[in-house]
Amino acid sequence: MLAGARRLVIHHRYGGPVTHLGAPRVRLAGPEDLAALGHLLHDFNREFEEPAPAPAVLAARLGRLLEHGDTEVLVVGDGPDGPHGLAVLRFRLALWTEGLECYLAELYVVPSRRGRGLGRALVEEALGQARRRGADTMDIGVDEPDLAARRLYESLGFTNRSGGEGGPLMYVYERDL
Amino acid sequence: MLAGARRLVIHHRYGGPVTHLGAPRVRLAGPEDLAALGHLLHDFNREFEEPAPAPAVLAARLGRLLEHGDTEVLVVGDGPDGPHGLAVLRFRLALWTEGLECYLAELYVVPSRRGRGLGRALVEEALGQARRRGADTMDIGVDEPDLAARRLYESLGFTNRSGGEGGPLMYVYERDL
Repeated sequence: MLAGARRLVIHHRYGGPVTHLGAPRVRLAGPEDLAALGHLLHDFNREFEEPAPAPAVLAARLGRLLEHGDTEVLVVGDGPDGPHGLAVLRFRLALWTEGLECYLAELYVVPSRRGRGLGRALVEEALGQARRRGADTMDIGVDEPDLAARRLYESLGFTNRSGGEGGPLMYVYERDL
Repeated sequence: MLAGARRLVIHHRYGGPVTHLGAPRVRLAGPEDLAALGHLLHDFNREFEEPAPAPAVLAARLGRLLEHGDTEVLVVGDGPDGPHGLAVLRFRLALWTEGLECYLAELYVVPSRRGRGLGRALVEEALGQARRRGADTMDIGVDEPDLAARRLYESLGFTNRSGGEGGPLMYVYERDL
């Protein structure tokens, strides 16, 4: 297994209609959320039967990313055990445009809360947050069979074709070092 | 056209055998290379009939990236007008592994120098440079019809299948903001 593969796999079930009133509340995560986010990320990996670092390790790594400043985390659906979903955004200076580029590195909603628009709310807020921070583009890595995720992204204006409609498919290539 | 699309398209002709003696010399670029690199990046974009910022703009942006420290540029084949090819590497802290992740953001060899192993030499040196800097993984965005580039990357251990051989294809999704 490629160590980096998990990072590029974004699974999300976007099935049913939104059955509650009002839009899910999305907020920026802070240091106080790290422990819960470590568990979320761990569950994310375990759900797809990939070896995952321990929750505390993931919490520490995410804390390091937040501290570095190139990373923001959005969370949704706060429950007694913590958020029900998260989106991890990575920013960096762009070469082909004047501003930043934003990479939606992770998107996860716990299985019991899917089909309620939490993923969509996270991505919509991610778009807004990226614009506010000065990003000109957003990119995501998605596995071909993740049709629910792909439909969600396509419905929000993303394409996997270079130059847009009718262009060639864009692949991610990767390897461990 | 997506402003970010160009960035994800890596074209490279890997056709003939290496016809000269000795491996092409690859070196790290410095501030003194920026003007020539701006022209290379401009030609790269123009070759595929996409609107490109002026060479001086690209040189300035690349300079900003080098100064920031998350970017390294490798060049190959120094001629009187500057290098014949370049590779742009972006580094950042990883979440799923302990070290860094490296993104091979650009790979370009001028048309008149293709088929001589310059692209391969650049990617091989990129792998070494990424390892030396502490990266655990490298990823690249490649268009589906870029068979020469894909063959090159596959021959160097890259895959566009999640988890490796037999896994699902990995797509890049993106949008302007």
